[in-house]
Amino acid sequence: MATACATILGQKGIQVSIWSRDEQHARTMQEQRENERQLPGIKIPDSVEVTSDVESALKGAEIIVAAVPTQFLRGVLETLSPALTETRPVVSVIKGLENETLMRPSQIISEVLDQRSVVALGGPSHAEEFARGLPASVVAAGGDARLTREVQELFNTDRFRVYTNIDIVGVELAGALKNVIAIAAGICDGLGYGDNAKSALVARGLVEITRFGTQMGAEANTFYGLAGIGDLITTCISPYGRNRGVGERLGKGETLAQIVSDMKGVAEGVATTRSVYELSLQQGIEMPLTEQIFQVLFEEKSPGEATDALMMRPPKDE
Amino acid sequence: MATACATILGQKGIQVSIWSRDEQHARTMQEQRENERQLPGIKIPDSVEVTSDVESALKGAEIIVAAVPTQFLRGVLETLSPALTETRPVVSVIKGLENETLMRPSQIISEVLDQRSVVALGGPSHAEEFARGLPASVVAAGGDARLTREVQELFNTDRFRVYTNIDIVGVELAGALKNVIAIAAGICDGLGYGDNAKSALVARGLVEITRFGTQMGAEANTFYGLAGIGDLITTCISPYGRNRGVGERLGKGETLAQIVSDMKGVAEGVATTRSVYELSLQQGIEMPLTEQIFQVLFEEKSPGEATDALMMRPPKDE
Repeated sequence: MATACATILGQKGIQVSIWSRDEQHARTMQEQRENERQLPGIKIPDSVEVTSDVESALKGAEIIVAAVPTQFLRGVLETLSPALTETRPVVSVIKGLENETLMRPSQIISEVLDQRSVVALGGPSHAEEFARGLPASVVAAGGDARLTREVQELFNTDRFRVYTNIDIVGVELAGALKNVIAIAAGICDGLGYGDNAKSALVARGLVEITRFGTQMGAEANTFYGLAGIGDLITTCISPYGRNRGVGERLGKGETLAQIVSDMKGVAEGVATTRSVYELSLQQGIEMPLTEQIFQVLFEEKSPGEATDALMMRPPKDE
Repeated sequence: MATACATILGQKGIQVSIWSRDEQHARTMQEQRENERQLPGIKIPDSVEVTSDVESALKGAEIIVAAVPTQFLRGVLETLSPALTETRPVVSVIKGLENETLMRPSQIISEVLDQRSVVALGGPSHAEEFARGLPASVVAAGGDARLTREVQELFNTDRFRVYTNIDIVGVELAGALKNVIAIAAGICDGLGYGDNAKSALVARGLVEITRFGTQMGAEANTFYGLAGIGDLITTCISPYGRNRGVGERLGKGETLAQIVSDMKGVAEGVATTRSVYELSLQQGIEMPLTEQIFQVLFEEKSPGEATDALMMRPPKDE
C-alpha cells in the first residue's frame, strides 16, 4: 500500500520518500525501482526515494502517509516519534482496529503523536489495481475540512478519484468491520451457496455493521458509500482477499488452527471479529452474523450449523 | 421464475397450479415433472400441476403469483381478466418498469385488475439457485400489512428467508433500476477495470438510484437492504446476468445493434436506462452514471470516453 501510494503521487511529480525499516529491502527497491515482493512489475517513479533512514525520509516532509498494519502501528510510531516532533498532518491508509484497545488507526496516531491532525483514506482500493493505473474511487475523511480538501487534491488524478467526507469514525470503522463480513462471505463461497446467498449476506452484513457503527458515533451514510458498501463489495468478491480466503477454507471444513498454521500472519478480520463481538455484547448491539462468525472461529461451530442458525430465526421485518 | 416459485411452494406441500399459455410446454412439464427449457434437472413436486387452461389453473386459488416479463404483463392480465373476477391478492415477482408508461408491475396489476391487493417480492433471487435449494433471503413488500405477513409465511422456509417491508415503491424501483447499474458493471468488466472500479461503481450507482427512488416516493432504507444493494450486487457480479452481459460486450467494443441482433429479446435494463434517463431530465435528478450509460447505448459514445467523463469531473464531497 505504501509503494502504491508513493507510485501514484510520484507519477504526479510529487517528491515522495518511502521509509522501510528493512534496510536491504529499501536499498533493493531504491536501486531496482520496483517493489518486487509486493508490487512486481510496477515501476517506481523517479521522484520517489526509498530509504531506511528515518531522518532522510522525513526531511522536508509536509505530509506523512501511514501505511503499516494496524497491530504494528503503535510500535512503529513510538520508534519514529523522536524524529516526528514537528507537527505534520498524517494521512492514514490503514484499515483495522487495534487488538484489546479497539482503537481506530487515527486514534492511535493522535495518541502517540500528541493530537496530530489525521485524514483517513477509505474505500475500495486494492493496491495491486490502482498502482497499475486501473480506476479507483476513494474517500478522504477528517475533522479538519481544509486539510481533508488538501489531501483530496494531493491524491486526486483522472484514474484515482477522491471524494471527501467529514465522518472519519465511520470511514475507519467501515474499513475494519468489512473484514468480519468478508470472512462470512468466504464461508458462503466455501459452502458453494451461490450469488443469492452471498449478496443477501453482504446486504444483511451492511445493516449489521451500520448498526454497530452508528452506535459508536459514525454516520449511517458513510456505510452506504465508498468506504462502506464499496469496500465491503471488493473485499467480499475479490479472490485475493485474505479474510475472504480464511472464510472459504473454513467453509470447506478446515479449522482456524489449520488455516493459521500455514498463513503468513493472521488475517485482520479474525481479531476484529473477537473485538467487535465482545463490544457488541457489552453495548447490547444485535449482531447475528458476527455472533455466528465468532462461534465458527473460536467455538468450533460448523459453518453449516451457523448458516442454519441464521436462516431459521423467526421471520421478521427487514 | 414461475417454476422456481411453484417448486419451493410445492416442496412445502402447498397445492400450486402453474399456468403457461404454451399448451405443448405445459403438457411436457406436467408429464416430465421438469421445466427442461429453463430449470433443467430440478424436479417439480407432485403437489404442483402445470396447465394451459386458465379456468383449471385458477380454480380454488387463494393467491395468484405473477411471474411474467414486465413488457408482457399488461397483455397477459387483460387476456386473463375475465377469469380473474374474484378478488384474489396477487404476489408479483416481476422486476422492471413498463416502457413508456414507466409503471411498476404492482401499478399495472392494480390498474388492469381493478385495485387488487399486491405484494412484491424483491431481493437477490436468481431462480436457478433458490429452486435448487441454495439459500436466499428476500423481502416481501406491500401496503397491506396483514397480507404481507401472510405472503411471508407462505414463502418462508429454512432456505428461503423472507423479510417484510412496507415500501413496495422502493422494492419495485430498486428491482428495475439495478439493471441500469448492471450494464455499467458489465462495461467495467469488458474494459478489464478490476474490482476497485466495479465496487466503486456499484457504491456510486447505489447513491444514484437511491436519489432517484426517494424522489419518486421510495424510502432510502429499502435501497440499503436486500431489494436494493442485495439485488444490485447479485446482478452486477453474476456471470449469467443478461444486463451485465450486454455491458460486458459494449465494454469489449460491440455496438448495441450487434448485441441485440443475436440476443433472444432485449435485456430489461436497456429500456429502463432510456426511461430513467428521460425521467431524470424531466425531474431534474442528477444521475451521472445513467447519463453516461444512456450515451453509450443510444448515442455511440465509447465506453472509454464515458469512463473518462465520470472520473474527470471536479473532485467533490461524497
